[in-house]
Amino acid sequence: MKCAGPIDVRDVDESSINIDPIQVGGRLTPEAMKAIIAYGDGYSICDNCRKPFRLDYIKTPPVDVFMRDLAAFLHMDVARVVPGARRGFQAVADTYVERGDPVLITALSHYTEVLAIESRGGLIREIPKTTENLITPDATAGKIEDVTRETGKTPSLIFIDHVDYQYGNLHPVREIIKAVHQYDIPVLLNGAYTAGIMEVDGKDLEADFIVGSGHKSMAAPAPSGVLAATAERGSEVFRTTSVKTDVTSRTFGIKEVEMMGCTLMGVTLVGMMASFPRVQERVRRWDQELANGNLVVDALKSIQGTEIRSEYPRKHTLTRVDTTKSFDIVAKNHKKRGYFFSSALKTKGIAGIIPGATQVWKFNTYGMTRAQAEHVASSFKEIAAENGLSVL
Amino acid sequence: MKCAGPIDVRDVDESSINIDPIQVGGRLTPEAMKAIIAYGDGYSICDNCRKPFRLDYIKTPPVDVFMRDLAAFLHMDVARVVPGARRGFQAVADTYVERGDPVLITALSHYTEVLAIESRGGLIREIPKTTENLITPDATAGKIEDVTRETGKTPSLIFIDHVDYQYGNLHPVREIIKAVHQYDIPVLLNGAYTAGIMEVDGKDLEADFIVGSGHKSMAAPAPSGVLAATAERGSEVFRTTSVKTDVTSRTFGIKEVEMMGCTLMGVTLVGMMASFPRVQERVRRWDQELANGNLVVDALKSIQGTEIRSEYPRKHTLTRVDTTKSFDIVAKNHKKRGYFFSSALKTKGIAGIIPGATQVWKFNTYGMTRAQAEHVASSFKEIAAENGLSVL
Repeated sequence: MKCAGPIDVRDVDESSINIDPIQVGGRLTPEAMKAIIAYGDGYSICDNCRKPFRLDYIKTPPVDVFMRDLAAFLHMDVARVVPGARRGFQAVADTYVERGDPVLITALSHYTEVLAIESRGGLIREIPKTTENLITPDATAGKIEDVTRETGKTPSLIFIDHVDYQYGNLHPVREIIKAVHQYDIPVLLNGAYTAGIMEVDGKDLEADFIVGSGHKSMAAPAPSGVLAATAERGSEVFRTTSVKTDVTSRTFGIKEVEMMGCTLMGVTLVGMMASFPRVQERVRRWDQELANGNLVVDALKSIQGTEIRSEYPRKHTLTRVDTTKSFDIVAKNHKKRGYFFSSALKTKGIAGIIPGATQVWKFNTYGMTRAQAEHVASSFKEIAAENGLSVL
Repeated sequence: MKCAGPIDVRDVDESSINIDPIQVGGRLTPEAMKAIIAYGDGYSICDNCRKPFRLDYIKTPPVDVFMRDLAAFLHMDVARVVPGARRGFQAVADTYVERGDPVLITALSHYTEVLAIESRGGLIREIPKTTENLITPDATAGKIEDVTRETGKTPSLIFIDHVDYQYGNLHPVREIIKAVHQYDIPVLLNGAYTAGIMEVDGKDLEADFIVGSGHKSMAAPAPSGVLAATAERGSEVFRTTSVKTDVTSRTFGIKEVEMMGCTLMGVTLVGMMASFPRVQERVRRWDQELANGNLVVDALKSIQGTEIRSEYPRKHTLTRVDTTKSFDIVAKNHKKRGYFFSSALKTKGIAGIIPGATQVWKFNTYGMTRAQAEHVASSFKEIAAENGLSVL
């Protein structure tokens, strides 16, 4: 069925249990669904924009309150919405990175951090990971020392992923940040997989910046995200324009340079706002989410030859699994080849795994009910057993 | 009525004739409304993202075809979607502007062009306007010469607004671009008020870049927009990442640095796509839109003391009007003061004028039926007559 022209109706989350690694935290709440219908039109948030004409001053709907609540939610001093986490990385990189400056990311960093630095001409260096795929404070301090020796400059900025996108591992970011601050370097904590999913306390972690993703983890439409900062760092990254033009002598009020003025003018922001009360509530149920995730992970572990590549027991619902010695062996002789696996999952009402993937793949159990987690867990085991794999 | 928490239902376009200067081209089509309901969730466009994992390669829904159609619509070689026109300005400024480089804008340029240059540390200079509020090829060439003398450098980039946001005047951009190209400087044509509203032929205009706004002029949710380029300039602004990391030796495929990888992952892009067939069609009815606009403008002109500040007859539906000597005189003695005007309009079912504004203000008649234009025109005259102003 088409919803418009050649565009199919999308009903994956209505018709299936979706375990897509990047999608599950971005599904809208019922409140957001209602809000986006009312605010679908272009500049819909701007009806009551009055002086000083900036998004975070709009009172109706209460964008002003939302921005303050968002900062408080992350235990930071100030927050702005951005068109995706990557635009938060970009704003911070644009503020601190000059051509040739060394900037640290980690061996598990997301490509968007790389692009934010590359666009400024920064020199990208990675903090190595341990064999358990974790970033440590020691490795971080060591890399700062190495890079300072290499370039003669202290890194101007460090990106640390709270939970990385490759393994879904939870890194000791509090200790890492403490190590980085010995060198007086600002730290951007990438909370794309944590802010809106689990509790994130920027004050306790001593983060200079926290970036979150609306469409990844805050039940919001895309592109949306949050950039939160301490008061001190906020005054740098959220600096206002200082231009006075030569001919007309125009100035541009309190527009923030790195935000490009206003950021989200309609459906994306209203979606974030409408979902926010449930997001604030859901982070407190993280233990239930982890319990569901571990149930599914344990089911996979019980299938002979299957290895969990993420840290175990799991501290996040995004998990990387290696089924080269289980489902991939089946694929070699199955008439559907690698497609047998996603096809079998589909039959059981489970979606979100790339068709054909039977070696190393990722899934995310976030947002399931217990019954759904039990169904997914038993489905993996059943598919294994039906295809001759032994299940412990 | 609330749609979610403290968020009021927004029904300005259902309950009124909206003449808001920035909103009218961004109202969704029925097709877009249906599509955004299906694609509200976070990464909803990504279900069928396969290698090489980039937005413009997605076939289901047909994003790949849409991107090519979008380029063809603007008569350019290549197009990408961006989170608002401003992010198109930013991508181009980031590509061509180094610290200290002179960059030209016009005396009527939008503040987002200023911010894009300011963020790169460029030196902003304005091309002056004529007393009729138009930018000319001669003024442009003159300013290039002046700035080159002043700084010792040719400007690295020039932003020209096709129709400016202040007066809604249509500038002779074809001739301006011809003048600029004598100096081998790339031109970014800001089509925020034209692309999606009237026909824009980048090939004929010889634009290096055309930037358009989805939420301003393409019946799309915010933030959305388009950045189109010639093949030559496209290879510069849409260059792919060249980073290879030091520890893990990771490379990042064909991700485009200035796009930050993918740009619009859900509702915003699907909204643009769903509206696109109607947008392609509506640009051909521009003469009807202008006729409606001129009908309203003529009504305002007939009210004694009222002056149209935009060029006349109008070549765009966005118009700046000065009622200091008409409605503002009424306001001085009216018990509602300046609010009498928006209040009287509201009574007649007309919305979109800032409450209290009775001196210089803007309106936009885009998207009205003839009957609505007639109603708006007669409403202005009636409000004038009811308040003792003479109407010719």
